Amino acid sequence: MKKIEYPEQVKNLILHLKRLPGIGPRSAERITLWFLERGGGEMEALSQALVSASAEVDSCEVCGFFATASGCAICGDDERERAVLCIVEEPADILPLERTGAYRGQYHSLGGKISPLDNVGPEDLNLKSLWARLERGGFREVILAVGSDVEGEATANYLGGFLEKHGVSVTRLAQGLPAGGGLEHADELTLLRALEGRRPVRRD
Amino acid sequence: MKKIEYPEQVKNLILHLKRLPGIGPRSAERITLWFLERGGGEMEALSQALVSASAEVDSCEVCGFFATASGCAICGDDERERAVLCIVEEPADILPLERTGAYRGQYHSLGGKISPLDNVGPEDLNLKSLWARLERGGFREVILAVGSDVEGEATANYLGGFLEKHGVSVTRLAQGLPAGGGLEHADELTLLRALEGRRPVRRD
Repeated sequence: MKKIEYPEQVKNLILHLKRLPGIGPRSAERITLWFLERGGGEMEALSQALVSASAEVDSCEVCGFFATASGCAICGDDERERAVLCIVEEPADILPLERTGAYRGQYHSLGGKISPLDNVGPEDLNLKSLWARLERGGFREVILAVGSDVEGEATANYLGGFLEKHGVSVTRLAQGLPAGGGLEHADELTLLRALEGRRPVRRD
Repeated sequence: MKKIEYPEQVKNLILHLKRLPGIGPRSAERITLWFLERGGGEMEALSQALVSASAEVDSCEVCGFFATASGCAICGDDERERAVLCIVEEPADILPLERTGAYRGQYHSLGGKISPLDNVGPEDLNLKSLWARLERGGFREVILAVGSDVEGEATANYLGGFLEKHGVSVTRLAQGLPAGGGLEHADELTLLRALEGRRPVRRD
């Protein structure tokens, strides 16, 4: 008596789904069976969505955000401020910043952060296009919107020196208490940064 | 200033992933960004796996398990017992039963269960092929391995009557305490079934 297994194609689909972030072996199997239960239409629809995202979505050569044949939504918008540049680690960081509604300038995605432990150095970041943009001039302020982890610090320190040479003012995102967070949940370093960055309570 | 959004192709991929069971909007976005970060290879690999599962995996016309061009792993295995038939709701129920190592017979997947609330009646189940198999004869025992929920009960009751007419002995999976479960976690109905199904403690 042979061991009953899923057909190769089914096992292969489970394997591929298991690679996705946040999907374990159980979910991968569950999703695969869900697909097989619904017949080919669902599988073909997702397959098509993957193919078209893979073929038609690229990185903007200027800012690193997602771009398609119709260009980049950020660089192509003439109504955005030209004199402020916000540097982020990943293109995915741009939408959360946009949702604040507080920023109207340009963006530049580095495509990573300096991380010696992962063998990521400055040469692996999208810097060539950053220097070219700064050479062209016109920026008054550059905001370093990198994370506050060790790699974010390293990236900010590295970039800070170069950027100041270009005669722009360089700022970083504030560190402190997260909105709605009490002091009892804040770690020491967060409290230290919150103290260092304290601001006068204005009475207008 | 326009609202910055992901390109259509990216939004479309997020939408499709969000449809999968157990994947919420956040995970769908996370998986999509993971894909875009890794470039086209990963997307094309999953797309290919989906296409081949969709095109090459079918239901076995006899038992309802997954079948490919090389046939059905269960019906095609001559070493399995021919006289016992185990009826399950879904093809996905077959592998867990196989893993027990306690069953060596044939299977039949109904492709569902009777559920008046969801408008699923006997005519929606894979019964034509079941009656044909029983007509051909040769089965000594039919095991109803359906769930112990209301729909499973309804399905078992419906099938039980017909099956006995075929002169086979009809059994159902035992209900009782799950392995490793204490009495304090068992609901009343489970305890009732466990009492009804009590077995003598053998002293050999």
